[in-house]
Parts: sequence; structure tokens; C-alpha cells
Amino acid sequence: MRTFKIVLGYDGTGFHGWQVQPGRRTVQGVLEEALAHVLGFDVRLKAAGRTDAGCHARGQVASFAADTPVPIAALRPALNRRLPRDVRVRSAEEAESGFDARRSAIARRYGYRLLDREDVLWGRMAWHPGRTPDAARLVQATRPLEGDHDCAAFQAAGSTPTRTHCRVHRATWRRWEGGVMLDVIANHFLYHMVRNLVGTALALAERTNPSEAMRAVLATRDRSRAGPTAPPQGLCLEEVFYSERVRT
Amino acid sequence: MRTFKIVLGYDGTGFHGWQVQPGRRTVQGVLEEALAHVLGFDVRLKAAGRTDAGCHARGQVASFAADTPVPIAALRPALNRRLPRDVRVRSAEEAESGFDARRSAIARRYGYRLLDREDVLWGRMAWHPGRTPDAARLVQATRPLEGDHDCAAFQAAGSTPTRTHCRVHRATWRRWEGGVMLDVIANHFLYHMVRNLVGTALALAERTNPSEAMRAVLATRDRSRAGPTAPPQGLCLEEVFYSERVRT
Repeated sequence: MRTFKIVLGYDGTGFHGWQVQPGRRTVQGVLEEALAHVLGFDVRLKAAGRTDAGCHARGQVASFAADTPVPIAALRPALNRRLPRDVRVRSAEEAESGFDARRSAIARRYGYRLLDREDVLWGRMAWHPGRTPDAARLVQATRPLEGDHDCAAFQAAGSTPTRTHCRVHRATWRRWEGGVMLDVIANHFLYHMVRNLVGTALALAERTNPSEAMRAVLATRDRSRAGPTAPPQGLCLEEVFYSERVRT
Repeated sequence: MRTFKIVLGYDGTGFHGWQVQPGRRTVQGVLEEALAHVLGFDVRLKAAGRTDAGCHARGQVASFAADTPVPIAALRPALNRRLPRDVRVRSAEEAESGFDARRSAIARRYGYRLLDREDVLWGRMAWHPGRTPDAARLVQATRPLEGDHDCAAFQAAGSTPTRTHCRVHRATWRRWEGGVMLDVIANHFLYHMVRNLVGTALALAERTNPSEAMRAVLATRDRSRAGPTAPPQGLCLEEVFYSERVRT
């Protein structure tokens, strides 16, 4: 048995998210189909982040184990020949036995891009919230998130995850060409967490003291106190981090 | 008669360029159709830059004259309701009588985006030339273009424009998120000129002295001495400049 690690990017606009769903075009679906063609048998992929419909990835990581003689250098070009244009494999390599793209990941980095104004060129991958975002106030609103927190206030409405504690390594905003983007790294993300953070940060940026308001929302652990969920197109899974020594 | 000035952006991926062509989807075609619906009669648009198939615009300007009672504030929302999602009107205003988006323009700014590496998210609007571009050497290659020059070496192969003299106000490269972009402003551009400049700059960046090599190419005024034409998707018409007093 060999274990494989695949890094890929995709434009999520034309997909119903990562995860396989019957009768729907998903990234996992097209990638497993391409792998079946190349390997000659079916495999089931694990992914570091199960992105939603309309969300993008530049550094998604998927893994699988298989007994195959395929030369590792041939895998990336063979997959890219077979894949549609909106998914590209950036690298394919062999990993240590036991590597699991999801369980072995120690952190993930997401970006959420806001537009200063509507722009048809960036509209597939960024969102204009109806007014020009104030970067300085967004930074104030988001800074209290850095550190160890129970992030239950930012879970998806109606969901009841068993593990709402997150270690947020970075939660800041920086300029990109079309406006500002949230740049957030954490060991673990709850479902819809980044999009809920963006909606909340935009709402709290209007307050007198955005940092204090964010600390208050966090402390409630109550989803109903946070802001609305920002739409999917601004979100991109940028990078996944693994330790040198794979945890199994 | 009233004269109208429309500023628009479009994702050129799904269009056969700006200019109306029978049986093909063009930006001019869909915009004239939307205008006919809103005004109740046909108009013919003039545009500042007749972009090619697959090229984009963020600040294209179009003009027309018409005898219509349409309130100016209603024009932009009415057009955007009617237009497909890949074209957006940014502003619609009344201009002085005689204003012509093409003839009144005193300069245009184009961007051409290169990618450091293949990236499916930016792939609709940027081009990866197969290796990571060297920004410093590209700047050296392009700097000699600033000033007044006969740019015949950069006209489209086979074309014979009557006016090959251009005043290039700026020709430099700057970072954008995915790599480097050519940022060029001139009073006048020849057909394919920006894409030919990019292909030539990439070729000359490999030389010992890119600036000297570019000066030599310019001096020949010979298209066959310049580099290949870069593909359309990296090009975007960013902005069109007009003097306060309209020249008619």
C-alpha cells in the first residue's frame, strides 16, 4: 500500500462544494473520477477542508491509500489532463504511511476577500458588502479572536458540533487588489465559521468599540448574537499545514 | 438630443470581444440590446477601446447620443437589471454635446497580469508564461518605452495602421496578488500592442541587457523583430482618461 498526498486548487463557482453528493457536480466527485481513470480502480479521498458550494481553494489537500504501480511523477500531469479546467492539481507526492489529509493537518489558512466596490472581474471570488469596508475597524473587530477560544458563537446556525474550541493563530485583514481580505489561520474551523466571522466583523465594525463588541459576542457562545453569514464566493482555502512528523 | 457616457466592466471570457459581429456574443451587442430595451429604440455605441475576444475591462467607456426622456439616475440600474452577469455598468451620466468615448479620450490605461505559477482562481484573468517572471528584468525591458515613439514594431502582424506614433506616459510592472502586472498608459494603442509588448518584454528579459534590447527592437519598427503575442486573458482595459473640456 502506498499513501498519496495531492494539493489542488479549484474555482468553486461551478461545484456543489467538495463533498460527493449523488447527481451533483462536486470537486471530490470529479477528482475521484479522474483518479479512477488513471489508476484503473476506485479510491475514496479524504480532504483537509470540506469546502461549501461556491467556495474556492488554492491549497486544498486530499489523500488516499492505494496499491498501485503508478510512477509518482506521472500522477499530476495524468490527473490534469483528465480534470476539467476549473480544478488543477498543483502537486502529487507520496506521504508516510498513515498520512490523512484531514486528521494529520495541524492548521488551515482561509482567506475571505471583500470588494471596495462591485467589480465584475473579481465577482466570482470576492464579495461587495454594499459599502466600502473600513479596514482599520475590521482589524479591531477581529483581533480579539486570536488565541484559544470557544468559538460556538460562530458555528453554523442549528449545528451542534462536539468540539467548538479553536486555537486561532492569526485573524487579521490585509489589502488585496480589489479591497481587503480576512486572513485567518486556526487549528480547527467550525462549519461556516469564517463566513460567520466576516458577517460579524462587518456588523461590529460599525460599533463604537469593535474589539469590545467582538469579545462580548465570543463570550456568549451564542450563534444568535453573532452577525449574518457572508456569501460563499469570497471564501478560499489557501493553505493547509502539517507537522514534519505525521500524526496518525 | 442628449449625449450619454457609460463606464462599464466586463469579464471577457464569454465574449467574442467588444465589437458587434453577426451571430456572435459581443459586449457591444449585449449592451446595445439592453439599451434598446430601456430606451425603446436602437442606438449605436462608440467605445474607447475595442477589446479583443477574451480580454477584459474594468473601466471601458461607451457613448451615444439620443433623444430620450429617460431620467439619468434610472439608466444604470435599468441597464444592470437587463444585462447578463458578466457585464456591469459602473456609471451612466450625461456628457457635453459632441462627447465621443473614442475620439475624446486623451489616454487609456491597460493592465496585463502575469502569474508566478498556474492558479485556477486567477486563470480567467491572468496568464502564466511557463516560468516565474522576473519583475526587475521586466521593468528594465519595458522602461525604454516611456516617451514618444513610433511603435510599429508592436503592431499586430499584418496590420498597416496609418498612425503608429504613440506617447507612452507609463510602462512599468508592479506586484499584484498572483504575480506581476504590466501597467501601461498611452495616448493611443495599436492593435495587439499591449499583448505584443508583454510577449516581447518576456523574451527580452532573458537577455544580458533587456533595456538595450528593447531600444533596438523599437528602433527597427519591424514587427518581426518583436516577441510573440501574449494570450488575451491577461489583458484588462483599466481606465480611460478625458480632459475636462471635451474635444470634438
